[in-house]
Amino acid sequence: MNNHYTVGTYLLHRLSELGVRHMFGVPGDYNLTFLDDVIDFEGMEWIGNCNELNAAYAADGYARINGMAALVTTFGVGELSAINGIAGSYAEKVPVVKITGMPTTNVMNQNLYVHHTLGDGNFQHFGNMFQEVTAAQTMLTQENAAQEIDRVLLACWHEKRPVHINLPIDVYNKPVNPPEHSLLERGISSNATALEQMLTTVIPTIKEATSPVILADYEVYRYQAQEALMLLAEKTGFPVATLSMGKGVFNETHPQFIGVYNGDLSSDYVKNMVDHADCILSIGVKLTDSITGGFSHEFTEEQVIDISPYSVSKKALKWAPITMLDALGAITDALEQKPTPATTARLAAYSNESSFTATNTTLTQERFFDQVSHFLQEGDVILAEQGTSFFGAATMPLPKGATFIGQPLWGSIGYTLPALLGSQLADESRRNLLLIGDGSFQLTAQELSTMLRQRIAPIIFLINNDGYTVERAIHGENQVYNDIQMWDYSKLPAVFGAADASVTYKVRTEEELEAALHSAQNSSQLVFIEVMMEKNDTPELLTALSKRFANQNN
Amino acid sequence: MNNHYTVGTYLLHRLSELGVRHMFGVPGDYNLTFLDDVIDFEGMEWIGNCNELNAAYAADGYARINGMAALVTTFGVGELSAINGIAGSYAEKVPVVKITGMPTTNVMNQNLYVHHTLGDGNFQHFGNMFQEVTAAQTMLTQENAAQEIDRVLLACWHEKRPVHINLPIDVYNKPVNPPEHSLLERGISSNATALEQMLTTVIPTIKEATSPVILADYEVYRYQAQEALMLLAEKTGFPVATLSMGKGVFNETHPQFIGVYNGDLSSDYVKNMVDHADCILSIGVKLTDSITGGFSHEFTEEQVIDISPYSVSKKALKWAPITMLDALGAITDALEQKPTPATTARLAAYSNESSFTATNTTLTQERFFDQVSHFLQEGDVILAEQGTSFFGAATMPLPKGATFIGQPLWGSIGYTLPALLGSQLADESRRNLLLIGDGSFQLTAQELSTMLRQRIAPIIFLINNDGYTVERAIHGENQVYNDIQMWDYSKLPAVFGAADASVTYKVRTEEELEAALHSAQNSSQLVFIEVMMEKNDTPELLTALSKRFANQNN
Repeated sequence: MNNHYTVGTYLLHRLSELGVRHMFGVPGDYNLTFLDDVIDFEGMEWIGNCNELNAAYAADGYARINGMAALVTTFGVGELSAINGIAGSYAEKVPVVKITGMPTTNVMNQNLYVHHTLGDGNFQHFGNMFQEVTAAQTMLTQENAAQEIDRVLLACWHEKRPVHINLPIDVYNKPVNPPEHSLLERGISSNATALEQMLTTVIPTIKEATSPVILADYEVYRYQAQEALMLLAEKTGFPVATLSMGKGVFNETHPQFIGVYNGDLSSDYVKNMVDHADCILSIGVKLTDSITGGFSHEFTEEQVIDISPYSVSKKALKWAPITMLDALGAITDALEQKPTPATTARLAAYSNESSFTATNTTLTQERFFDQVSHFLQEGDVILAEQGTSFFGAATMPLPKGATFIGQPLWGSIGYTLPALLGSQLADESRRNLLLIGDGSFQLTAQELSTMLRQRIAPIIFLINNDGYTVERAIHGENQVYNDIQMWDYSKLPAVFGAADASVTYKVRTEEELEAALHSAQNSSQLVFIEVMMEKNDTPELLTALSKRFANQNN
Repeated sequence: MNNHYTVGTYLLHRLSELGVRHMFGVPGDYNLTFLDDVIDFEGMEWIGNCNELNAAYAADGYARINGMAALVTTFGVGELSAINGIAGSYAEKVPVVKITGMPTTNVMNQNLYVHHTLGDGNFQHFGNMFQEVTAAQTMLTQENAAQEIDRVLLACWHEKRPVHINLPIDVYNKPVNPPEHSLLERGISSNATALEQMLTTVIPTIKEATSPVILADYEVYRYQAQEALMLLAEKTGFPVATLSMGKGVFNETHPQFIGVYNGDLSSDYVKNMVDHADCILSIGVKLTDSITGGFSHEFTEEQVIDISPYSVSKKALKWAPITMLDALGAITDALEQKPTPATTARLAAYSNESSFTATNTTLTQERFFDQVSHFLQEGDVILAEQGTSFFGAATMPLPKGATFIGQPLWGSIGYTLPALLGSQLADESRRNLLLIGDGSFQLTAQELSTMLRQRIAPIIFLINNDGYTVERAIHGENQVYNDIQMWDYSKLPAVFGAADASVTYKVRTEEELEAALHSAQNSSQLVFIEVMMEKNDTPELLTALSKRFANQNN
């Protein structure tokens, strides 16, 4: 037994084992002493955020690239400020470990009216609230710490959803034994019988299909099944579409890629291929309003073989436990190699092979996203804020190895700016680009300061179209509630950080943007480009979807 | 029946009846059409905030001055962003009506996977969370709207705590009958027998007391009992102390005022008067750690007659229902007039009668608060952020009619900046002053932009002491987690608003501050004063309390 090995160390050790290298959060007096452990732990860097919601968003962005993230806040005030970010991680299946520093066991047992509580001696209120948006929860004691930390971290890992660890501030420094086994030894393994029975049913269906399609979504990315998906696609030669939430899980320059499916807002070609397929291999798909043109998809479960993280289903039949990786592998193995289709069938529009020539005209939504798409490089990480940015960016063809981050289900505006801090820290070798509107930017603007402090070098496109354009498209085009205060955005980086930490541009025409992009190409500083755009100009996809949302509200 | 009178109108009508003249919030597609009603409603002004947490803080600040406030957000993302602010209102008993625009009844009944949900077809998660921090909740339908709106608004009014109104976006425009009676006709009335029995027991105790004291706290302010308190104090001649949470509920220039009680961190005089009183008339008091020097008060319930909003207690005896106003009135009536004490007994230090002479030396915490206290005028509203500002400001003597706003129980940093927006809008005729540190300011900085947009003219003192000084005092004086990014604060107002909407200063010495104060005296623009201060300089009260908090965490 090692007297210097504590509950705090055990927790950091396990997080480190799962790949967590940064701890996000905000200090508070119920977590300060634990933060000493964080600072001292080798391989863990403390990232202090401007506020707790931003910390939660940053952790979410980090986890989407890194595979897992952690953040720590204080009790009550801190955890409730973060809870919207945690709910977003829950909705979109992002594995984030939320650690809350609590008052001491002694203070709680005495039901004292201490600060950061409701003043009623009850310390359960906020834990109860977190139960609604986390996959597992625990309150650590010296006795249960090792078992409980392992249990909730495994839940986080397997379910790809946030978990909540309550850490009373008298417990973190109590001695505990180091772990004897690696955490992931206890994985979820597929059942051989289930796997065999699944194959017996689904393989004939797949083989008999005359107009099959693969429809892939974000869970392929979360469960690291991209390579297995590629093997299946290439063995079958089936056309592949993704949903916009899972945009980028399949290489968009691959000849079998046909485009992003958006219900009846898809291109006719994609819509037809998916809706009329006689067999849809649906992999990690969740059909929500924002990504189906408001539930306008026309296929039914009759057509679908559904491959989920731990099960496979075909209509009323379900086989489990089968991991997504095992399912894809077994199905691939059971099929014969088909010739790769010679040419791509996708629409020419969905390609950036044609060149873009910048003109001296004012930027429009349509031309802007085309122009940016020509700037993208292999391996880029593209974040697009829910609003005009997401719906504009959803139509951009991505280069190979690019990752696309949006939040179409939860759709919390302001999310992507702090998420960019996280995604860029998760892999500093990849170029990160953010597309965000002015309305969204104002919600979380201060997190730009943390990026400047960390001296990271993403490229931020701030689309200034004078208000909540996405809301104008849904309702109240000229209503005052869709107006916002006009900021002098391009001056903000200089207020938030050192002069040499960023470079800023303000552009109105395609040529000005082209010049800024040229300079930004290999910048070692953060690049902030304020893009002036007309306030009622909306991407075509958003215009169509907004009408659906307005109707959905009647 | 009036076909044009709708559920939305009814709600706005009732809010208006309770004095609400501004609606805070952020638009979202589940509340947009209701916002049309808000805009059209005469006597209701829409205040769009930069984000929902800021909206909740603004509503809280508004309610503290106005008596009630309302805010509206969208479902899921919006309401969860606001929930920390609502929890603060619950903890500190501030009546805020939280309205959440929800998806339509039809969408919910079908359990659709729509945006701003967890994607599980369950629309109860967030309502469940709000139950932990609201006094009443409802989901409106066309049928129940009138009754339910009345029920929850009355709960808000009587309990002085937030309530949650869920408004499906298909319900707001349904016809409903206008109210036939005023809402407050149905008040809580005192029971005559309880009142009589109470007097029979407590009057002899009060009359026999040889060293009595009145201890008043914030509920006196919430239940508009300040005048009744004054009448009782002047009839009895008893010395009066307040707690820091209720600072200002009793005129601090009154000869009977002895100071703010802070447990054993009080002045010896105040501590002795309270702890050793043989009868403490405790009025609207809640003893929490931040305002008792970490539970260091030495009096016991043996000494106390407790007057609560709706009851009076003496040890095990409790009489109810008795309203605070009736209790104070009845006790006052039952006592004989005592001569007013000739001179004030309070410490000379607790007075701003002496003059302050600014010198050409660097500002210190001790001198700064003294200097500011000499700048205060009758009727000022002073907001002090939890941290060095609150503990420094808690020792400032207040002029007559001044209101002090802090958040010592909930203690959510960043609260006061948006709260200032609310408190200033609640009464534009009063001068509002905010004292806030740089660490806290960064959490909610963008709300400065809403103040500039509204062209209000408060005075903001931004105390720049390079990080979380309040946390340094508790733990980790030189730890990196208590550092923050240095901003060029005094340039922010120009980025957030029109050049003529604000005037800024950056001061390092007493003389520079004096010059800024002189210019600010009658400014019609927002005044932003960045006050440079040494990073480990802390107000004496904070230094002492921080040690208690550090010990409480062991």
